[in-house]
Amino acid sequence: MIRISLDLMGGDFGPQVVIPGAAKALERHPDISFAFYGLKEQCDPVLANFPKLRDKSVFHDCELAVRMDEKPSQALRRGRYVSTMWRSIEAVKTGEADVAVSAGNTGALMAMSKFCLRTMANIERPAIAAIWPTLRGESIVLDVGATIGADAQQLMDFALMGGAMARALFDLERPTVGLLNVGVEEVKGQDEVKEAGRLLREAGIESLEYSGFVEGNDIGKGTVDVVVTEGFSGNIALKTAEGTAKQISTLLREAMSRTLMARIGYLLAKSAFDLLREKMDPSKVNGGVFLGLNGIVIKSHGGANAEGIAAAIEVGYDMAKNGLNQKIENDLKKYHAKRLPPIGPEAA
Amino acid sequence: MIRISLDLMGGDFGPQVVIPGAAKALERHPDISFAFYGLKEQCDPVLANFPKLRDKSVFHDCELAVRMDEKPSQALRRGRYVSTMWRSIEAVKTGEADVAVSAGNTGALMAMSKFCLRTMANIERPAIAAIWPTLRGESIVLDVGATIGADAQQLMDFALMGGAMARALFDLERPTVGLLNVGVEEVKGQDEVKEAGRLLREAGIESLEYSGFVEGNDIGKGTVDVVVTEGFSGNIALKTAEGTAKQISTLLREAMSRTLMARIGYLLAKSAFDLLREKMDPSKVNGGVFLGLNGIVIKSHGGANAEGIAAAIEVGYDMAKNGLNQKIENDLKKYHAKRLPPIGPEAA
Repeated sequence: MIRISLDLMGGDFGPQVVIPGAAKALERHPDISFAFYGLKEQCDPVLANFPKLRDKSVFHDCELAVRMDEKPSQALRRGRYVSTMWRSIEAVKTGEADVAVSAGNTGALMAMSKFCLRTMANIERPAIAAIWPTLRGESIVLDVGATIGADAQQLMDFALMGGAMARALFDLERPTVGLLNVGVEEVKGQDEVKEAGRLLREAGIESLEYSGFVEGNDIGKGTVDVVVTEGFSGNIALKTAEGTAKQISTLLREAMSRTLMARIGYLLAKSAFDLLREKMDPSKVNGGVFLGLNGIVIKSHGGANAEGIAAAIEVGYDMAKNGLNQKIENDLKKYHAKRLPPIGPEAA
Repeated sequence: MIRISLDLMGGDFGPQVVIPGAAKALERHPDISFAFYGLKEQCDPVLANFPKLRDKSVFHDCELAVRMDEKPSQALRRGRYVSTMWRSIEAVKTGEADVAVSAGNTGALMAMSKFCLRTMANIERPAIAAIWPTLRGESIVLDVGATIGADAQQLMDFALMGGAMARALFDLERPTVGLLNVGVEEVKGQDEVKEAGRLLREAGIESLEYSGFVEGNDIGKGTVDVVVTEGFSGNIALKTAEGTAKQISTLLREAMSRTLMARIGYLLAKSAFDLLREKMDPSKVNGGVFLGLNGIVIKSHGGANAEGIAAAIEVGYDMAKNGLNQKIENDLKKYHAKRLPPIGPEAA
């Protein structure tokens, strides 16, 4: 049984979309058990439409919901201990849940997760990892916006955590890891990125294969399983790719409705278009994973539909089932043990 | 007459592609006069196929060509004064050409351009501006990789230069300018970006309208005419968008050839696909513009075909015709005059 605590009030549509999403996930994975955190009067009418889901889940009525536009500090002040968001995270801390899922405000969710769960030993800053559809399947890109800027050691931690996530999610033994840079030559790029490249080359980590620098166009190619970057450029890469995909689909739709011949052609090729849409559908790969905390938290896109919410829940399900955090902790321990050999009186 | 100095040896295919590109540009703009810089024995056979172009142009035989994989410092050492790249830039310096165009190695081209032309007064670092196809037409994005990192004042300079370029290229009176950031709230982002936002708001610049922060997905939407960012994230945004566009077209091609119905549909809708390809064709918007130097230099994509080379030449043509550098110099002068009122003995 995988126990998932779900913030029913998150996202642009709240329980109207989150509850149907949970129902979809439960249908596909009957071994999920949900703990719901919501405002009763808003959730009850929706839950009434999903009696099977409602009967298999535990509902916790909460005092308030964090707003989508609330600043992280404000959300913490107002919502700590009492909000649906906080309490779904807290269930992971107390061990009542294996993973928390929320479509709420990213900044608030990260602030509360850090405050409630704390970062792992040896991890200075958590990261948000995105699952990115590529020509070869899927890759992991991190950090996509948890923090701005990162030094070489932090990039190294991102590589270790992303590698562990790739093992948990893609069932790879030794995922390939690349550092996002502006050129593949060793001379280019930011000092931190160059230094992180040196660390990764020299560390000889068993759990991943360092493939060197990659560029923006390598992400979509699927050149490596894990792309490591600091949160500013990672977020810009993610949003730019989303924007480009949307731009092309808009242009394609316009072009396909312009002439009668094109409209007929579209109808004949509809299954092909549907396949393409399926492959590029952001809701199919929805779910940013917060890495580096003492517990797993999944952030769904705020604008996700029920299918998107289900996808985010399933990412959490996979992560918990495959022991993501144990994998990360083991990898970090091995790396840091090598890096700082226990000498002096503390080692006795 | 617009006088263009062209490095025939640049790019992955050299004169084989650059010369046909020049012929295309001349056909569309008979008021171009070319000064060619190349290696005679490689260029003569190709030029023989374009007698009209050859007879209207001046050919300068050079000692050597910069290689695509040469480091900038090495290219400068080996190729200063004598290479096709250097001599095409030098023609702008001596006033023999209005603009230089090369498809050669970006790093070498930037290093030589800086060394030969020097940066404009008040400009610390030049930028590379890209022309980006959007849902609303085209936007300018800078810097896409001339330098890594930028402080608030440099971002401000990029905004002024990008604004001047938008006026020269898009015939706008007061282009809108946005700062690329990871969120639209004023609280987010890098300190330099926030500070640049404050400078832009307070400067009250006549030649542009500051629209605040924009995110990665705003670029493709065409939310603003000019998107300003430092070179690392700008380069990653550009390459990620290129990669995403390529990924989608590959998936679309695969989907369209999968079934007989899809193949028939594709044939019927072919004109629509051609229209889409035209709109997203990178060769149609080829040409990075080096801004902030005492002369205009255009960098074509190294892998460009003849149509791409022609597009880069035409960007240079437009920039020279519309007095890009005069516009930049005027804007900078106005801004810096406001910023540093002439006081003290120097003002006398």
